[in-house]
Amino acid sequence: MPIITLTTDFGWKDPYVGAVKGAIYKELEGITIVDISHEVAPFNIAEAAYIIKNAYHSFPDGTIHIIGVDAEHTPENKHVAVLLNSHYFICADNGVLALIMSKLRPEKLVEINIHDRISSNFTTLDAFVQTACHIARGGTLEVVGKPINRIRAIHGVIPKIADSKNVIHGQVIYIDNYGNSVTNITKEIFDEIGKGRKFEISARNERFNKIFHRYSDLINFNDKENKRDVDGKGLVLFNSSDHLELATYKSNPLTVGSASTLFGLQINAPVIITFVES
Amino acid sequence: MPIITLTTDFGWKDPYVGAVKGAIYKELEGITIVDISHEVAPFNIAEAAYIIKNAYHSFPDGTIHIIGVDAEHTPENKHVAVLLNSHYFICADNGVLALIMSKLRPEKLVEINIHDRISSNFTTLDAFVQTACHIARGGTLEVVGKPINRIRAIHGVIPKIADSKNVIHGQVIYIDNYGNSVTNITKEIFDEIGKGRKFEISARNERFNKIFHRYSDLINFNDKENKRDVDGKGLVLFNSSDHLELATYKSNPLTVGSASTLFGLQINAPVIITFVES
Amino acid sequence: MPIITLTTDFGWKDPYVGAVKGAIYKELEGITIVDISHEVAPFNIAEAAYIIKNAYHSFPDGTIHIIGVDAEHTPENKHVAVLLNSHYFICADNGVLALIMSKLRPEKLVEINIHDRISSNFTTLDAFVQTACHIARGGTLEVVGKPINRIRAIHGVIPKIADSKNVIHGQVIYIDNYGNSVTNITKEIFDEIGKGRKFEISARNERFNKIFHRYSDLINFNDKENKRDVDGKGLVLFNSSDHLELATYKSNPLTVGSASTLFGLQINAPVIITFVES
Repeated sequence: MPIITLTTDFGWKDPYVGAVKGAIYKELEGITIVDISHEVAPFNIAEAAYIIKNAYHSFPDGTIHIIGVDAEHTPENKHVAVLLNSHYFICADNGVLALIMSKLRPEKLVEINIHDRISSNFTTLDAFVQTACHIARGGTLEVVGKPINRIRAIHGVIPKIADSKNVIHGQVIYIDNYGNSVTNITKEIFDEIGKGRKFEISARNERFNKIFHRYSDLINFNDKENKRDVDGKGLVLFNSSDHLELATYKSNPLTVGSASTLFGLQINAPVIITFVES
Repeated sequence: MPIITLTTDFGWKDPYVGAVKGAIYKELEGITIVDISHEVAPFNIAEAAYIIKNAYHSFPDGTIHIIGVDAEHTPENKHVAVLLNSHYFICADNGVLALIMSKLRPEKLVEINIHDRISSNFTTLDAFVQTACHIARGGTLEVVGKPINRIRAIHGVIPKIADSKNVIHGQVIYIDNYGNSVTNITKEIFDEIGKGRKFEISARNERFNKIFHRYSDLINFNDKENKRDVDGKGLVLFNSSDHLELATYKSNPLTVGSASTLFGLQINAPVIITFVES
Repeated sequence: MPIITLTTDFGWKDPYVGAVKGAIYKELEGITIVDISHEVAPFNIAEAAYIIKNAYHSFPDGTIHIIGVDAEHTPENKHVAVLLNSHYFICADNGVLALIMSKLRPEKLVEINIHDRISSNFTTLDAFVQTACHIARGGTLEVVGKPINRIRAIHGVIPKIADSKNVIHGQVIYIDNYGNSVTNITKEIFDEIGKGRKFEISARNERFNKIFHRYSDLINFNDKENKRDVDGKGLVLFNSSDHLELATYKSNPLTVGSASTLFGLQINAPVIITFVES
């Protein structure tokens, strides 16, 4: 039986996460449910998209991902289910799907239309749970929804490229648990625009000319251990999601500080890459 | 095999949640364990009761719910197990059960008396774990405890009704993850006292004359999307648990604010409904 | 099939915990994965060790424990797998293992050497996941690593004993969810040095002459319930891990206060036991 994952802004304290799991187990005894995150900032679909985009592909093909963020069912906030890259996603058509899909094309896409069949005062989740369980049982998307062609797009999340093709204007889109500041500049965009040229990365008062591959690339292992002074030192790298990330070595917001606290790189902070003609 | 759920004030950092799960798996390989919440405020049984009351009924009949809040076993804090509404609850007799049960009558109720048989320095959890596993294996309550008739009641959690039957004096009992303020006034009480009359809800400096059914009822979908100004706007609704809730639209305590931050509606804040003779 | 547990400093918000679980399920359908903790302070191996040391033994023999703290693979931070006390541990050789093992001797110990076979930019976790799944399938440690004899030790975590054998100089090593301050002084050390003598425990401005066995030992149950004044009162006990703990009764850092907030007993705060010649 496929796995069902949950990504929500419910938090871990309230009864909702437990209630959703109970409802799934009531339908499908013994199914595996995995929490991807319940700490998405309330109604923040960009954050939800970043999290799920970087977790879903680790799961087996056929996994069903429920995204419970900004999902109240209204005439303007339809519920959709999509088969994409061999994974199922169930969410509101509020833009989160466009952020996850980027260039991918859905294999199947339906607007969920089973709400009238559900008697409940928690319709959002019930519709998602019913749809997920239907798919897990091997049912087709057409039974729970009507095929559609378009989903809602969202603007402003992709970095801007200057007309000169010499400058990428990106921004911080996510602060991770270590306080590292993740930008919307992917390695793909960087390589496409940079074409191997030299560059300067500018983020508030910090300047960087080098992008590392791993945090520990900062260390010269020929130096004696007590001669190194790297803890809390700033660096830029492409993280495991291939997003440009401003980080500090062994970062901890509460002790040595982190990129977000030390450099003031909070959500939406601009990060600019200027390429130099070689 | 039935599911075992956990509701505790252990938090997610400490070793205790993992230790309890390990102990259960040691007894029952392959059983499903579901976390309802581990973020109950320390020793706060009212909060624990609100959470479990709103999650347990989603689970299949026969589910076993462990409540590890204020559970140290003492001469005055007995351990009990109860079959209620086709679900099992295992907890201390500290009032939490009375809050969950309200008008329900237990089908079976025992005081757990297996503590002497357990050699451990973490008796509280061991007794709960042993009891849960015994029930999960199909054992009866009588084997792990002796039948009792009464449990400990708790006062002050039910709203007061004025003698005139025109006023309900309630209070905030729970702040959810979105910062919404949930009161102890249920739809049942509201309907019984209000009998369809007009009313005014008073919560600190805010006044409301309307109760919504869903957050999005605040929106007039005939208005153009950019003409609406609803984010952070206050409303009152009966939530998915049928409790009166003071909320703000797309609430987020850290950005647009929430009912608890904007209106100052913290735990115990009074919420008063006055009905007008029609 | 054995259980796999996870102890990390990833936090619950980021995609990493979900990604690791997805990768494990991709290898081993239906395996049981248990979160011990994901809230270890970033790079804090002492905290990770305390948590896992107090949870692992609850699990069945043969359980596989992944410790994802300070685990970036470098020439100086090897990855190791060990069979210890019938449990498997997979982690970096950064000292965490020495803290968990203390006096135990590993039954098997290898340095993991499968990194070259993995094509990924998240090597740390992939190596741990691959190793865990290999063991879960019944594979031997020798297939994923080469046997070694020594692991990295860490100093300064064990209390100092004065030459007179009359004084134990310990310190706070962990603050739990209730704000209790756990020290590195174990019952074993206390008994060995104290030999039943009278003592005074000194922690900042507080002095204690008695060690309790349970929080409720503070209560005289002969007193009427409303005559007791114990909430928030300080006490010292050996906790469920047999570590000396400075606590307050029904502790809650946000309300009545806790040992860490009231007595100022934060991480590293000295706790000194002086024994009196009898």
